[in-house]
Amino acid sequence: MLPYSTLIQLHPDRDTPLYLQVSNRLIQLMTEGTLAPGMRLPSSRKLSEVLNIHRKTVIAAYDELIVQGWAETKTGSGTYVNKDLPIVQASKLLDNASAPVAPEFTPEYSLRFGFNDGHPDVRLAPLKSLVKEYNSLVSNKMFLRQLNYQFQFMGDPFLRQQLSSYLHETRGIVAGPNEILLTRGSIMAFYLIMAKYIEPGDNVVVGDPSYQTFNDIIAIHKGNKISIPVDQYGMDTDVLEKVCQKQKVSLVYVISHHHHPTTVKLIPERRLKLLQLAEKYNFKILEDDYDYDFHYEGSSVLPLASTNRREHIIYAGSFSKTLVPSLRLGFLVIKEEWAEELSQLRRYIDRTGDPMLERAMGVLLESGEVKRTLNKANVAYKARRDLLCNLLDRELRDEIEFDIPGGGMAIWVTFKNHIDVQKLIEYCEKRDLHISNPKTYQSRQSTRLGYASMNEEEIINAFEILKDGIRQVQLPS
Amino acid sequence: MLPYSTLIQLHPDRDTPLYLQVSNRLIQLMTEGTLAPGMRLPSSRKLSEVLNIHRKTVIAAYDELIVQGWAETKTGSGTYVNKDLPIVQASKLLDNASAPVAPEFTPEYSLRFGFNDGHPDVRLAPLKSLVKEYNSLVSNKMFLRQLNYQFQFMGDPFLRQQLSSYLHETRGIVAGPNEILLTRGSIMAFYLIMAKYIEPGDNVVVGDPSYQTFNDIIAIHKGNKISIPVDQYGMDTDVLEKVCQKQKVSLVYVISHHHHPTTVKLIPERRLKLLQLAEKYNFKILEDDYDYDFHYEGSSVLPLASTNRREHIIYAGSFSKTLVPSLRLGFLVIKEEWAEELSQLRRYIDRTGDPMLERAMGVLLESGEVKRTLNKANVAYKARRDLLCNLLDRELRDEIEFDIPGGGMAIWVTFKNHIDVQKLIEYCEKRDLHISNPKTYQSRQSTRLGYASMNEEEIINAFEILKDGIRQVQLPS
Repeated sequence: MLPYSTLIQLHPDRDTPLYLQVSNRLIQLMTEGTLAPGMRLPSSRKLSEVLNIHRKTVIAAYDELIVQGWAETKTGSGTYVNKDLPIVQASKLLDNASAPVAPEFTPEYSLRFGFNDGHPDVRLAPLKSLVKEYNSLVSNKMFLRQLNYQFQFMGDPFLRQQLSSYLHETRGIVAGPNEILLTRGSIMAFYLIMAKYIEPGDNVVVGDPSYQTFNDIIAIHKGNKISIPVDQYGMDTDVLEKVCQKQKVSLVYVISHHHHPTTVKLIPERRLKLLQLAEKYNFKILEDDYDYDFHYEGSSVLPLASTNRREHIIYAGSFSKTLVPSLRLGFLVIKEEWAEELSQLRRYIDRTGDPMLERAMGVLLESGEVKRTLNKANVAYKARRDLLCNLLDRELRDEIEFDIPGGGMAIWVTFKNHIDVQKLIEYCEKRDLHISNPKTYQSRQSTRLGYASMNEEEIINAFEILKDGIRQVQLPS
Repeated sequence: MLPYSTLIQLHPDRDTPLYLQVSNRLIQLMTEGTLAPGMRLPSSRKLSEVLNIHRKTVIAAYDELIVQGWAETKTGSGTYVNKDLPIVQASKLLDNASAPVAPEFTPEYSLRFGFNDGHPDVRLAPLKSLVKEYNSLVSNKMFLRQLNYQFQFMGDPFLRQQLSSYLHETRGIVAGPNEILLTRGSIMAFYLIMAKYIEPGDNVVVGDPSYQTFNDIIAIHKGNKISIPVDQYGMDTDVLEKVCQKQKVSLVYVISHHHHPTTVKLIPERRLKLLQLAEKYNFKILEDDYDYDFHYEGSSVLPLASTNRREHIIYAGSFSKTLVPSLRLGFLVIKEEWAEELSQLRRYIDRTGDPMLERAMGVLLESGEVKRTLNKANVAYKARRDLLCNLLDRELRDEIEFDIPGGGMAIWVTFKNHIDVQKLIEYCEKRDLHISNPKTYQSRQSTRLGYASMNEEEIINAFEILKDGIRQVQLPS
């Protein structure tokens, strides 16, 4: 007889009934080849003695094996491994002790404060209101039936309706709910568009530098990236025109409001020029709504999409900055026919968005809570921007160059050449201050100092560490 | 002077300040070409008279245009459209009345009861407990900081840790948290695997018939689908062996527990054979956990993945059936290296899962609420299955053939040939009863009658309509 007392280790403390522990382990032994097809299993009396369990438990385990088809009985002769199982090459005898065991695991949460890429402050987000809405939704019988019976591939109709009015009021965009496709943040919006409309080798124009994640999405879909210089007025549309004269351009990605990473605004002349080129050379513009809601001087410039030339302009936006970046909820304003096409693709990626989150956001839009949150955040972020700009200007004028951004959540700074930025980052990390690496912006000396997620005290603390670091890492001139 | 009173329609009832309504509309007119570069704008006095608003409002609007770069002042001579704007071909004069207006929109929610594909009953889902967890999470400062600062591309570490124990206890799977990748339901799990591991033309084996959504995902990634017959014992592994002898197979998709759509179980011999073939011919098995949790006779057969041969078996599961199908949360059990690769791709699809949902599910797993929910549902669904099977057997024996499924949420039925199934569906729709179309199962006379989402009264009502329908649509024999 096999050494069953070693092979079968029981755990009475677990929820799984003992008889199932026995039968499951026997199945594993059959699968590993330790128990071969046609082999006789020990009698229930014998096995119950060896394992020190009740005989009824063994009988139940054998019944389970028979029901499942792993074993068979021969009258008067006992229980056998099903002889029709294919012969598995016997692995070396494994006792339970050497069976694989899940490694110990301690989740690591990095909670670094610091100058990130430009995240919002979660402390200002209307999360409690959101959960309050969830509370009433899960008691709403009509909503529950919708949850069960319906996949809204375009996203929740109520939120799309609210968004239709909201985009009109805040951005001059006239789009019906059927021209609005909800997505998991703007990342999914980008992914869907590239997957659907870009064939391998198609030319996709972006700024130089541009949002790295978008560059990566182009690469995933094997698009051919063409980079056009971005200066203080935004993407250089004259260069774009020359590119168009030479080759077919399929799509131009533009962050018109505050370009990422450099925070510059696309000026009116170039906006109109871009529209003209799109019509003349028949390419799509993918306009990123990035940071539209955060503007501290005058008001925001209306997006290109407010010209409602939907044949050429697709508009991508997100609620990540009003809520938190990790609650993914974004939207595309797009020709109805394309919205439908993309929603059909999206069915096979995640089926549908989160109907609870979508519905609750619709309610927060309707009640004005989203606007109140944005107003509050604008006041707070302007003060934080001013504070950090003042500190930089007053104390690090010889080490850092920057322009005051008109809005958004980060300052684009350039460290002068005598600063070793990589060493600076290392120094700050040691003091638990995170700084975004210039490499993520395709740069050596420039980075984004996100200020929005820190309150004023935190900004001052962070700045002190940054300043100390800069004193440490100056190269000999 | 242009007919400004027609061109600029103001809406004092809206939230947008009047001066912005004026400047935004003027920008639109410039963009459309109605206002050409260099053109003089009316004086603020004049425009305020025409529009019947305060002169200060017009001055503020012009200031806005100047700040944004759309207009410029010439001292002593007034305000002009920026002459550097490119000349736009003037569209025909649009007045606001003919400007695009979002169409009226009434969201349509179809709330049909009926025999669906096999959905759970949302009334049994622990949604209130879930929202209770949300409530405490949004007051948890540590969690909020995680929300802000961290994208968990693999999914919430706490849920992965809980899942590691849960899968061990319920499925005999020994997988550490780093071998578990959270996804938006099993759909995203499938999508990621196909996107990463299947090149155009690669052979992917599925059952005939099989889960249609998976077939569609193969098509999206241009895989070559090979269908293998599924009989009452599951996928025919002898046929699979012959296929493997002739050509390279990259992946085999198998729903081992209750095959979709036919509900049959893959028997032990074929399970082992499949494993042997995977090792011999070096293909990946993608095992779908579908309906594992719902079993009414004996216990569930351990999945293939419990053999922990991670080099060959990828296991995909989902919480859709414990919660509601539209709250997307699933997982892959997969080699650590592959989990990492897939999480890197997932960054560009939706960045990250929903950290609130993931954490809350982790808590519900830990507290045993998930198990209690499943136990409760198993009792309810078994009763519903028995009820529907009895009704079918007693009253429609001459019209419908079926086997009693050992678990799951639907019965695979075949209408005899004298029943015109398409007419039956139409008849039932008219009486607000939904029946899944056989076409979605690549069939003419067979469909799935999902019973789990209806309570016993609802099943009886639905059955009566079905029975009436069948009486109506019998073909002359």
